[in-house]
Amino acid sequence: MRAELLAVGDELLFGDIVNGNAAWLGRQLADVGVELTTSTVVGDNVEMIAARVREALGRADTVILTGGLGPTQDDLTREGIALAAGVALRRDPFLEAALRRRFQALGRQGPVGAGFEAPEMNYRQADLPGGAEPLPNEVGTAPGIRLETAGGVVYAMPGVPGEMYPMFTGSVLPDLLRRAGEPAVVVHRVLRTAGVWESVVAQALAGEVDRLAPVGNPMIAFLASGGQTRVRISARAGDRAEARRLIEPVEEAARAALGIALYGVDDDTLEGTVLRLLAERGETLAVAESMTGGLVAGRLTDVAGASAVFRGGVVSYATEAKESVLGVDPDVLATSGAVSPEAAAAMAAGVRDLLGATNGLAVTGVAGPDEQESKPVGTVHIGMVGAFGTLTRSLRLPGDRRTNRIYAVVQALDALRRTLSVHTC
Amino acid sequence: MRAELLAVGDELLFGDIVNGNAAWLGRQLADVGVELTTSTVVGDNVEMIAARVREALGRADTVILTGGLGPTQDDLTREGIALAAGVALRRDPFLEAALRRRFQALGRQGPVGAGFEAPEMNYRQADLPGGAEPLPNEVGTAPGIRLETAGGVVYAMPGVPGEMYPMFTGSVLPDLLRRAGEPAVVVHRVLRTAGVWESVVAQALAGEVDRLAPVGNPMIAFLASGGQTRVRISARAGDRAEARRLIEPVEEAARAALGIALYGVDDDTLEGTVLRLLAERGETLAVAESMTGGLVAGRLTDVAGASAVFRGGVVSYATEAKESVLGVDPDVLATSGAVSPEAAAAMAAGVRDLLGATNGLAVTGVAGPDEQESKPVGTVHIGMVGAFGTLTRSLRLPGDRRTNRIYAVVQALDALRRTLSVHTC
Repeated sequence: MRAELLAVGDELLFGDIVNGNAAWLGRQLADVGVELTTSTVVGDNVEMIAARVREALGRADTVILTGGLGPTQDDLTREGIALAAGVALRRDPFLEAALRRRFQALGRQGPVGAGFEAPEMNYRQADLPGGAEPLPNEVGTAPGIRLETAGGVVYAMPGVPGEMYPMFTGSVLPDLLRRAGEPAVVVHRVLRTAGVWESVVAQALAGEVDRLAPVGNPMIAFLASGGQTRVRISARAGDRAEARRLIEPVEEAARAALGIALYGVDDDTLEGTVLRLLAERGETLAVAESMTGGLVAGRLTDVAGASAVFRGGVVSYATEAKESVLGVDPDVLATSGAVSPEAAAAMAAGVRDLLGATNGLAVTGVAGPDEQESKPVGTVHIGMVGAFGTLTRSLRLPGDRRTNRIYAVVQALDALRRTLSVHTC
Repeated sequence: MRAELLAVGDELLFGDIVNGNAAWLGRQLADVGVELTTSTVVGDNVEMIAARVREALGRADTVILTGGLGPTQDDLTREGIALAAGVALRRDPFLEAALRRRFQALGRQGPVGAGFEAPEMNYRQADLPGGAEPLPNEVGTAPGIRLETAGGVVYAMPGVPGEMYPMFTGSVLPDLLRRAGEPAVVVHRVLRTAGVWESVVAQALAGEVDRLAPVGNPMIAFLASGGQTRVRISARAGDRAEARRLIEPVEEAARAALGIALYGVDDDTLEGTVLRLLAERGETLAVAESMTGGLVAGRLTDVAGASAVFRGGVVSYATEAKESVLGVDPDVLATSGAVSPEAAAAMAAGVRDLLGATNGLAVTGVAGPDEQESKPVGTVHIGMVGAFGTLTRSLRLPGDRRTNRIYAVVQALDALRRTLSVHTC
């Protein structure tokens, strides 16, 4: 089965938002082995939408639309599909009644106040192209659409991810799979690395790729983002077990080649791995940050349940705070400066003591755009204090302020991860 | 002039990365009034690339490709363009020599080590479709391509944003503008609001939209993301001054309707506005965070020069840290709990004193997924201490852990912004 995606909306075309829906749907379709060959974005224009739907159906068995199902005048997906299929729009009385009940409930309980009457234009969401079936929307007001046409089946879903995801999983995907019969299954295995550049990872695996995956099944892809590199091994087979058997030897060879750079697989995160390593040791963590300004703590607390391990942190942005709050020796600041390995080590020790944690992690450096203490932009010093003693790591990042801060967060978390992995207790 | 975008790459189609290049190019084209009607993503397949190029040229005057220009076997944009245009690829001796010099320099100085010989496949980057001109790449190794065809002009640029942005601005855009003659100019004005929902902003402006922009020029769009809502007023005219004259009365009416919800325009940020308000008062700020775990501090320190105003912060993730580091009265924690307006106010006062700042801002709450102290997920209490006295603001957010944390950051910064705006010194 061949599918195409068609996202509708001027806000996508003009770059007000990125097309994250296409990325999400691309992953879902790849996971079930539906072949996706083209993904298109079109503006809020009935004729253009209709033309792109017709073209997509000429190339693929199904086209999956997102966006343009809302109540306002620029929501034109319903009209575009109807035009493409050569049918008229009709208002569905059951959908209309459901919308009316929903708006009345809002008027009674909701934030808009009692006596609220939804503007008439809201009931456009009860319109369907002739012959179409509505797809239930458990979250928002706009139902989805499924329409069988001569050229293939058309699905349309709202553009809001929170409404689209459950509609795809609950309605569109089961319908697609039913039609596809027994598709080939694609299984992915993602190996996650940090602290090494993509080209180094790729080079480390170059020989293995040619040896173990010469015919493109399994396939290996290298994906770098946010200072980390993922190695994705994908295999296509008749069932999941067979696909996993194809992946196994490649994964084994890749693991050997990556060594300690490998921190996890699939949905693992670097911050989750650090917290897990600490939990396994029965230890806790406190962090002190200057150049990363709270982002290391912010990343760790992204993880639900971080409080079992993470005690807290100090953002010592003003240099005096390093002394007054973290107790860094003023001699260290005067001699080596606030951006130095010595300051990083003292900050780590200070925050560990202040928050009563087993381990302290600290980052100081120069994010940019200007140098600081005559130290160049990109300078980073990481300090670590724990049962392993006191360690520092210094590096120089090549990016701008934003990139340097993100990479410094990754490097700090990865430095602690490597230290905890090597110094087992 | 009508343009289409065509991004090449399995990694885009399968959702490994989002198509940020299309968003960026969409903004650039909209800004100069080039009409963009369709944007497409196609996988790493020569025939597919060629087919999409031909289709795009059938609809538009130019097609701008990104991606697929690298050295590896799956970089097939060169071949795809050649197939679409019915020409052969030829190796450009000047490009090849330049690549050879570049790789030799890498071998001498670079991280790959002395004696490095670039694999032969790298010289595929010196191939050009017959009749094409190379576009200089100041950053990376792959040159861009410009090819005049019967159907229109084809541009191809690397997919790496750091290489593509300067190539577009330096080579593609000037060439496009030269061809377009004197295009209509589109001017945008963005009004930025925080602390109100998109629907409330839209409702506040509904009457004005119909009255001032009935014919779609200027046009008003509402764009909600990350807990903030932007109102974009766009006008198309013969020159920028005329476009600005069209925008002016709509902007004035919108400003009046938005009131204090409006925090800035165009590229202003909420965090930058908070820092500017503090700098104007000659004041400083310290923040204490639990549920946001460092993200408020992280957002403030995104701004270069934040150190003039921002002293630092404490992430008091463990409840004991609120007492031991911030000096919150244990009676407050015992009576009201760590998630309470009283705790938020005490945290704000504590961090202000600890870091010697003029103002303290604190956030405590329940991000989720589980309730805490029997308080429901989404509970947020914001505390503010400054020359204006002590203020708290409590709210209930409807999202999951990730959304609640992002929205809490925005609500905390916005609460302080509104307070500083109202309590002028």
